Amino acid sequence: MYHVRTNLRKLLINKDNNRQCAYPFNSLTTVSSLFQPINLAPKNAEIKRGESIAKSQKLLNEMGIVRQASPGMYTMLPLGLRSFDKLKNLIATEMNAAGCQQLCFPFLTSADLWKRTGRMETTGPELMSCTDRHNRQYVLSPTHEEAITDLVASLPSLTYRQLPLKLYQISSKFRDEIKPRFGLLRGREFIMKDLYTFDRTIEDAKETYDSVSQAYDKVFKGLGVPFVKVLGATGNIGGTLSHEYHFPSSIGEDELKQCSACDYGTNVEISDKDACDLCGSPMKETKGIEVGHTFLLGTKYSNILNAKFMSKSGSSDTCQMGCYGIGVSRILAASVEVLSSETEIRWPDTIAPYSVCVIAPKGGSKEESALPSAHYLAHQLNNVGRFTGDVIFDDRSSLTVGKKLMEAKRTGYPYIIVVGKKSVHDLPMFELHYTNQNMKMEATATDILNQLNRIK
Amino acid sequence: MYHVRTNLRKLLINKDNNRQCAYPFNSLTTVSSLFQPINLAPKNAEIKRGESIAKSQKLLNEMGIVRQASPGMYTMLPLGLRSFDKLKNLIATEMNAAGCQQLCFPFLTSADLWKRTGRMETTGPELMSCTDRHNRQYVLSPTHEEAITDLVASLPSLTYRQLPLKLYQISSKFRDEIKPRFGLLRGREFIMKDLYTFDRTIEDAKETYDSVSQAYDKVFKGLGVPFVKVLGATGNIGGTLSHEYHFPSSIGEDELKQCSACDYGTNVEISDKDACDLCGSPMKETKGIEVGHTFLLGTKYSNILNAKFMSKSGSSDTCQMGCYGIGVSRILAASVEVLSSETEIRWPDTIAPYSVCVIAPKGGSKEESALPSAHYLAHQLNNVGRFTGDVIFDDRSSLTVGKKLMEAKRTGYPYIIVVGKKSVHDLPMFELHYTNQNMKMEATATDILNQLNRIK
Repeated sequence: MYHVRTNLRKLLINKDNNRQCAYPFNSLTTVSSLFQPINLAPKNAEIKRGESIAKSQKLLNEMGIVRQASPGMYTMLPLGLRSFDKLKNLIATEMNAAGCQQLCFPFLTSADLWKRTGRMETTGPELMSCTDRHNRQYVLSPTHEEAITDLVASLPSLTYRQLPLKLYQISSKFRDEIKPRFGLLRGREFIMKDLYTFDRTIEDAKETYDSVSQAYDKVFKGLGVPFVKVLGATGNIGGTLSHEYHFPSSIGEDELKQCSACDYGTNVEISDKDACDLCGSPMKETKGIEVGHTFLLGTKYSNILNAKFMSKSGSSDTCQMGCYGIGVSRILAASVEVLSSETEIRWPDTIAPYSVCVIAPKGGSKEESALPSAHYLAHQLNNVGRFTGDVIFDDRSSLTVGKKLMEAKRTGYPYIIVVGKKSVHDLPMFELHYTNQNMKMEATATDILNQLNRIK
Repeated sequence: MYHVRTNLRKLLINKDNNRQCAYPFNSLTTVSSLFQPINLAPKNAEIKRGESIAKSQKLLNEMGIVRQASPGMYTMLPLGLRSFDKLKNLIATEMNAAGCQQLCFPFLTSADLWKRTGRMETTGPELMSCTDRHNRQYVLSPTHEEAITDLVASLPSLTYRQLPLKLYQISSKFRDEIKPRFGLLRGREFIMKDLYTFDRTIEDAKETYDSVSQAYDKVFKGLGVPFVKVLGATGNIGGTLSHEYHFPSSIGEDELKQCSACDYGTNVEISDKDACDLCGSPMKETKGIEVGHTFLLGTKYSNILNAKFMSKSGSSDTCQMGCYGIGVSRILAASVEVLSSETEIRWPDTIAPYSVCVIAPKGGSKEESALPSAHYLAHQLNNVGRFTGDVIFDDRSSLTVGKKLMEAKRTGYPYIIVVGKKSVHDLPMFELHYTNQNMKMEATATDILNQLNRIK
């Protein structure tokens, strides 16, 4: 987990001396010091009139989560980076649990390798390249089949005992889309988790394929956004078997057919049938945002690039490969796209930038005397239990709790605690908003802490 | 902290049934399943005869920590990536504690921005660029002054209340070195932490400069590698004041002069004097590997790119900037360079890939009956206390403990526990090696656990 610490001094030397905090913890992020450039009227320069805009693109820009730097290229602002790090950890945890190991390749790959596999020609103008001062050409890698197969081919003594080998990275990729659109949903520079596997036989590779598919199911179930899995086309990546993972959405650019009775589905690219191949039931059409793709590759790359291992019998055999992608930055946007309203972001609980937002009363208000309760709740949650390091404190004294609540809801924090009117009653009560359930309750501080720590 | 989980099933379905582990934890990395391509005779293709090679480059390659992909570009293998993640967290913790916030820019920056600041011409052939399908030119960013100043300039309503703004990233950068050399010490694609600050006045900017300098001191003290801080040249980055952080090393490419009596020092580029400017004592010469650089920039970028804020009096003022780099991948290699012997890697305790390595007895040996003790020690350390998630278990049954100890020392794990001959005595004793202190002790399992959990 990614922890942010803010400067305690900032809290302690707050100009409103009566707003000082008594809790000597050093790890609570305050909204007053957060870099979240909220921009409810987007710049014309960024989003042109008439251009079709995705809801997620509009919301993530307006709420200061990500910001366009160039067409199809985005800066992750602090809140976006936190979400992204949570998503990265969710994916890495499942990959590691499935016996995969993380590494990281350079962004640039020698064009020579891409020429050897033929993909320099077959990929088309989406493949961007550059040339160094010695006139050597490099690809701005959209994937790393060539790079990893070359690495494995360079191992002097790879034997069957070391297989399967499952290596992945989570890093920036590049694809020069002719018309980048919908923000992070179809960017040019994007973050992908790409896993490559090496096996002894095609049967073993199929077994690995199945086990990685199970890990993918866990990633998407863990994320909590509805998804479907369909048969996909192998396309320019190649191979003999391929599945796609989609978030169903009207903005999706893939046409899918799904059985109305069983789990079977296909991308219409490969099988546009009206009846299910498995059970014969009618197929229904949906649109999907592709968020994951798995390929059983066979020897397409290992053969050309000479990735071999010593078999049990002592012969030199060619590795059987698989490759597996997850669109990390795309998932971030697609989750927001699927879950949000037109005006308020909704995150899966697992990847919200902060899980809990505690809203302090306005300076000079009747409730200001309850400020110590706000500090207590925020620090208690941020330092102990389920939400440690995952709390943000809206300390701004110039704004009403109503205004701050509206902003917290637009940003989409899943749990919001408001220190409002009843916080100064004889039995002080606080509001707890369950943003994703569109529910709220009133409770004492102790009950709110218990309630939140019981979640999940 | 970065946690790796390996597949418990792997441990449980180990072919040697008597080597099964009784501890149902899911997070212990085993050497048998680790991707660490040890390669004591480096490929001729990678390191040419006669080429000058840094010790760190040779060791990191031989021990399967990093691997060259192209000239000046390196793949972080699993152990290297773990070290890198620890270093990243060490730096991020100090940056966050100093009130800085992390974000992440794209690798590519529009060349238009670099043309506006003039750096497209002044940077020279080290600046690599590429052109997209619409003939728009992008820089493979070596730093992000232009990108961040453009971001701040685009904020519609930045006011004095939001300053200072301190924004940083830890990401891949590119510099097309004419002769990349010494591995990660002078690579072309490298990882840098780059911080940019925005202040109201030059006095405020100087105050920010001093506070970031203090954070830098904490980073380098926390790392534990001897360092010096000297006055540096502002060069192509610009500005009025600059300091450099160096690891003294004979392989360093910077010539430094340091006062023999006080802390004062300079890079000879800017002041090649024989007597100290502060106290008049004689200066001595050293060589350094530059690992950090701070610049008080003033308005060089904010003026051209129009990064303004509304002042207290309502006027529109130009932001006063600073920029601050730390060479993350360079520190990884430079630490190894400074601390290692010719044949064995030594890491700062803080960034070793794993802190503790537990070595299990060989299969079929007299000590094999102590295997459960090895499991106990490894799982106990990996699941509770100081080294949680930071333990690697050398479970390989075909190798002697002597062979495994040699490899663990070469890889440089700071604490190595050997389950050796005395582990089957009536009072079982184990060896604890303090690699960085070149010391060892014998103790019971309980004493070893207590000893290790008391560290730091």
